[in-house]
Amino acid sequence: MTFALGVDVGGTKCLGVVVDEDGTLVTEARRPTPHGDDALIDTLEEIVGDLSSSVEPGIAIGIGLPGLITTSGVLRSSPNLPGVVELDLAGRLGARLDRVVRVTNDATAAAFAEWRVGAGRGVDDLVMVTLGTGIGGGVVAGGRLVVGANGFTGEFGHMVVDPNGPPCPCGRRGCWERYASGSGLAQLARVEAVGRRLPNVVAMAGGDAALVRGEHVQAAARAGDADAIAVVDKFARWVALGLVNLTNALDPAMFVLGGGLAEGADLYLGPIQRWFGELLYAPHLRPHPRLAFAELGAHAGAIGCALLAAER
Amino acid sequence: MTFALGVDVGGTKCLGVVVDEDGTLVTEARRPTPHGDDALIDTLEEIVGDLSSSVEPGIAIGIGLPGLITTSGVLRSSPNLPGVVELDLAGRLGARLDRVVRVTNDATAAAFAEWRVGAGRGVDDLVMVTLGTGIGGGVVAGGRLVVGANGFTGEFGHMVVDPNGPPCPCGRRGCWERYASGSGLAQLARVEAVGRRLPNVVAMAGGDAALVRGEHVQAAARAGDADAIAVVDKFARWVALGLVNLTNALDPAMFVLGGGLAEGADLYLGPIQRWFGELLYAPHLRPHPRLAFAELGAHAGAIGCALLAAER
Repeated sequence: MTFALGVDVGGTKCLGVVVDEDGTLVTEARRPTPHGDDALIDTLEEIVGDLSSSVEPGIAIGIGLPGLITTSGVLRSSPNLPGVVELDLAGRLGARLDRVVRVTNDATAAAFAEWRVGAGRGVDDLVMVTLGTGIGGGVVAGGRLVVGANGFTGEFGHMVVDPNGPPCPCGRRGCWERYASGSGLAQLARVEAVGRRLPNVVAMAGGDAALVRGEHVQAAARAGDADAIAVVDKFARWVALGLVNLTNALDPAMFVLGGGLAEGADLYLGPIQRWFGELLYAPHLRPHPRLAFAELGAHAGAIGCALLAAER
Repeated sequence: MTFALGVDVGGTKCLGVVVDEDGTLVTEARRPTPHGDDALIDTLEEIVGDLSSSVEPGIAIGIGLPGLITTSGVLRSSPNLPGVVELDLAGRLGARLDRVVRVTNDATAAAFAEWRVGAGRGVDDLVMVTLGTGIGGGVVAGGRLVVGANGFTGEFGHMVVDPNGPPCPCGRRGCWERYASGSGLAQLARVEAVGRRLPNVVAMAGGDAALVRGEHVQAAARAGDADAIAVVDKFARWVALGLVNLTNALDPAMFVLGGGLAEGADLYLGPIQRWFGELLYAPHLRPHPRLAFAELGAHAGAIGCALLAAER
């Protein structure tokens, strides 16, 4: 039985899925993400067509994109989709397909998927944090997805955690994603690597400190390099700091950590938990939220779009 | 018609109220807050007795206290009630009165009251922030009070906004309430007042910079003192920074600002709004949440306890 169709629009590719009621993949389709409004709508129509042989007529359709998406499905702007601004995707794609299309933020959709059919199944209060190039996420409170007044819940990456910190492309300073994202890890390592320090990590980057990326730090730390392990620890402290702030505000039972860094879960989990205990308010008086890594991987966004559309 | 009874336990006094369905005060009673578990339960029983002549038998009863209160009504510990630890107030007071008593965090109760019958009436997504000696608050999302997994939602004061900042009595550094609370304002002024600076503010404090309090800064700023206005501006930036972080995470339509600083609303509102626009992520792409000051004043907590108890 097919149930719902979801498409996750990424910076480079669009991933479409058809899932059954349990969120299990029935089929999927991929196409490169094109440039511009019209081409994007064409591509989305093609993906729906690609998947249509396996779906029931009238199946619910959901689309997820990075960026600020209003509750009526207008994409205000997206850092990963240059040239796409104020696009009424729900309206235009809906008219093209002659049906209701639900459009939502990709990280909100991923949070919904992990809550319904992933790592957070059965948990009424959870926060998903996606640690990728930037940081996004979603909030479930009291057994319901929190959307916010405008649909913009979960822009965790731009919480300011050090007003005197390094500049963020968003125009402010010391945003959480300057430290705790994939690019934050690389940046922490490059700062540490000056003056011939971090030699093993720099060697993995071909000998040029400016080319150090998060994966080099991970690989060196896994190989037991003490300098790399120290960078991972510093990084884990920044991750924990943001999780602590969200815990003080929202008191979740669980965090689901997703995005590219979930692949280094084994390396980060221990240090993040330790720093979490150091930084949390009144840590001895409360159960600490469970930290788990996402289960649905790169499919979480698309699956969440499908499940959200079916919910509507 | 009487509707519900609420008691707000403060550091120095307990305020009991009886309200009707609209949250309108029918009657109230006060007693000093005593020391220790047993005396506190005696006092609460007495306040209920004081108010009982005006209430229906079987009226709902709610109690609010500062600190971490579990969802089953156990006070874990409270900074303002030394000697009261792990007190099962719902159980013990309930047994004494032979009825169900709902026990909750005082700031959560105040948020509920402002949402239901105060400044936030009719708003489905709001965050209340109480700026007093410390900072607490509560969250309403999608038309429901957010309680959290353990009942600890809204401990905003201990969000870390500068990991290298001044130490907080909680044991961490750079907690938001070090800057944006009433004591934070005084501290900002005392730091500025060294070396004969802030002369007018220091004069209002009797000539001793170490005795400067928030009200001296307020009074001097109201009188047009430029130095004091600069301190208010710095303070407003810190307030805005925390509100921005909460907006990025939760996307509320409105903030209700309460606590002692609500009395200086006219002085703070403009600077907070200006800094909010500077610090918010993508400020031009989204409606800014409305900033309003609490309407229920010192009664908010007690009224909220009553309304929450009636809701149960």
